[in-house]
Amino acid sequence: MSVSSFHPPQRTLMGPGPSDVNPRILEAMSRPTIGHLDPEFIRMMDEMKALLQYAFQTKNALTMSVSAPGSAGMECCFVNLVEPGDKVIVCQNGVFGGRMKENVVRSGGIVIPVDDEWGQAVDPAKLEDALKTNPDAKLVAFVHAETSTGALSDAKTLVELAHKYGCLTIVDTVTSLGGVPVLVDEWGIDAIYSGSQKCLSCTPGLSPVSFNAAAQEKISKRKTPVQSWFLDLNLVMGYWGEGAKRAYHHTAPINALYGLHEALVILQEEGLNPAWERHQRNHLALRAGIEAMGLGFVVQEADRLPQLNTVTIPEGVDDAAVRARLLQDYNLEIGAGLGTLARKVWRIGLMGHASNKTNVLLFLGALDSILTGMGANINSGVAVQAANDFYA
Amino acid sequence: MSVSSFHPPQRTLMGPGPSDVNPRILEAMSRPTIGHLDPEFIRMMDEMKALLQYAFQTKNALTMSVSAPGSAGMECCFVNLVEPGDKVIVCQNGVFGGRMKENVVRSGGIVIPVDDEWGQAVDPAKLEDALKTNPDAKLVAFVHAETSTGALSDAKTLVELAHKYGCLTIVDTVTSLGGVPVLVDEWGIDAIYSGSQKCLSCTPGLSPVSFNAAAQEKISKRKTPVQSWFLDLNLVMGYWGEGAKRAYHHTAPINALYGLHEALVILQEEGLNPAWERHQRNHLALRAGIEAMGLGFVVQEADRLPQLNTVTIPEGVDDAAVRARLLQDYNLEIGAGLGTLARKVWRIGLMGHASNKTNVLLFLGALDSILTGMGANINSGVAVQAANDFYA
Repeated sequence: MSVSSFHPPQRTLMGPGPSDVNPRILEAMSRPTIGHLDPEFIRMMDEMKALLQYAFQTKNALTMSVSAPGSAGMECCFVNLVEPGDKVIVCQNGVFGGRMKENVVRSGGIVIPVDDEWGQAVDPAKLEDALKTNPDAKLVAFVHAETSTGALSDAKTLVELAHKYGCLTIVDTVTSLGGVPVLVDEWGIDAIYSGSQKCLSCTPGLSPVSFNAAAQEKISKRKTPVQSWFLDLNLVMGYWGEGAKRAYHHTAPINALYGLHEALVILQEEGLNPAWERHQRNHLALRAGIEAMGLGFVVQEADRLPQLNTVTIPEGVDDAAVRARLLQDYNLEIGAGLGTLARKVWRIGLMGHASNKTNVLLFLGALDSILTGMGANINSGVAVQAANDFYA
Repeated sequence: MSVSSFHPPQRTLMGPGPSDVNPRILEAMSRPTIGHLDPEFIRMMDEMKALLQYAFQTKNALTMSVSAPGSAGMECCFVNLVEPGDKVIVCQNGVFGGRMKENVVRSGGIVIPVDDEWGQAVDPAKLEDALKTNPDAKLVAFVHAETSTGALSDAKTLVELAHKYGCLTIVDTVTSLGGVPVLVDEWGIDAIYSGSQKCLSCTPGLSPVSFNAAAQEKISKRKTPVQSWFLDLNLVMGYWGEGAKRAYHHTAPINALYGLHEALVILQEEGLNPAWERHQRNHLALRAGIEAMGLGFVVQEADRLPQLNTVTIPEGVDDAAVRARLLQDYNLEIGAGLGTLARKVWRIGLMGHASNKTNVLLFLGALDSILTGMGANINSGVAVQAANDFYA
């Protein structure tokens, strides 16, 4: 066996993440590695905290990056906040709500399910029913932006309801952070996690998290130790914490953190409002093209995520064949449907750096050409123009 | 608040890890990000498995990289293999054996401690005593190369003993892999984990692991689910496994994996035997200089790790001041002592790419100059020459 260096192709990433990475971030990741206790690295960590506080719109002291992908950020929230026997209301309207349920069970908690159709937002009325019938519930967990369906839920209202009934909240913002408003302090979110590879346009592998005082208090009053040593916030905070001694816990993924730092600097330079507006504008241009083609969206207009567009596959069209053509002929990746939506939808990401006019036009032209070539029942040759008209 | 891009200084990394990263690896990490389900990425994963099998000297099908640092690799082994109530014999001769005990407890297991002095190898006789008095023990765990002390234990003998008494083994090779022989199949190690940032010279953030058939069988026969969703090998294998459907589990840290792939290609190019010999040669040169200076080692000669040299600090010398001078004046990082060895020793890494003549001479010259300037009781001005003579 003899293996050579790996040289990946240059793709356009318009799936559910990872999304196109800004070249500045790739360059930052290739800067010289320094030690995880180096004074210069500690300074970088302090900056990272300030940048994450900006991205999350929070003053929470416990704001940092978990040294592993978003799934570990999710687990970090659940293993720290759920104690054995705790009732946790989990609102599920897609794949990632299901994963939350798994996390509750494995943390020794009891799941109270609140289920909505995939593709719909979480229904606040159903949550309130569950809160009323479970006055002993401790936590409410939901996904702000369901990556599997493209539906945006009303985080502000759901958090208000949870608090009204004395519950803390765990909110998944893996796909929302940087793409649509995420206002941790204004909405009162207690524990939140996200991912580096969606609207922050960084490479995958890190999970920004933030916890408010109420969440910290629940963690500090636990009767049982956190079951994960790696994710135990009591230990992690000795390294990341405010005024901490920077005690060695685990070796931080230095160069990956350089990348996230640069991604957050870029977000700060653009500003949150302009970033949200850019995501919305490119979504509307994509929508103009998709609708001109005669295709439709799974999610109703009010709940649509601009950064993740779930488009219904036309009757008789082979899902996998289209995605393979996009990848082979256009070096363009889009996402397949998951779970109940498998083979029924495509998931088209316009996230972070990938949310731009060039990508919208490239994709619409490619899809139009492939579907027309397959004889699919669409309006051919009009999508690119419709999107272009939108930008004009 | 306005934060600028972070430009780290260029350090020479001669601490306990991260070690100097080969520039080829930094360049590899900055290659274009592709999707974690891209056919080209899947091909890279297959190559990665073959490269890790070479590094570990194993044919184990379950050989892969955990998407988080070595601490998570450790936790992956324990949460999958330890079932509630299992007795686990943990041999401790430094910091990381203590961390293993934490992992056993948090996984619901019962620790049977076998303790040795910090700086000594694990004593096989003590392990055998523990095995005799605990015939119901299920697992033996030990650290092959204690990063906190620089002591190398006899993994082959310890594994043989464990098997003689019907126990499976979990072996920490975070600091040994690539620096000294680690022969998984020949020694019969059942579960093993390592880190990317030591003798593999990659950036921190990934943890290579491997499990043999016996370990896999114990995992598949578990009566309780693995408490960690992120580290559950039954799920992870759906993505990384032999003949697996590459089912989405978590988003792999794409660019970090490019880096590890390149690190393993470099190891393959050099070859394991030449790499081990290089580590030994540079260690002996360092030793010549250290001893010429009149300083000594904590670990007795037979058990010394060539890649991690624990040197006793001369009487009256301020540990932190010396390390600060090395960092400020020479951009050179070495490690402090941990636990019972704090302020008593320096830990000098010669790991992977950092194990070279230039680093040995640079460090000896710097240390000689700093200690001489402080008026320490050493033989001044002879260390560099002694090391140079060794190379001649």
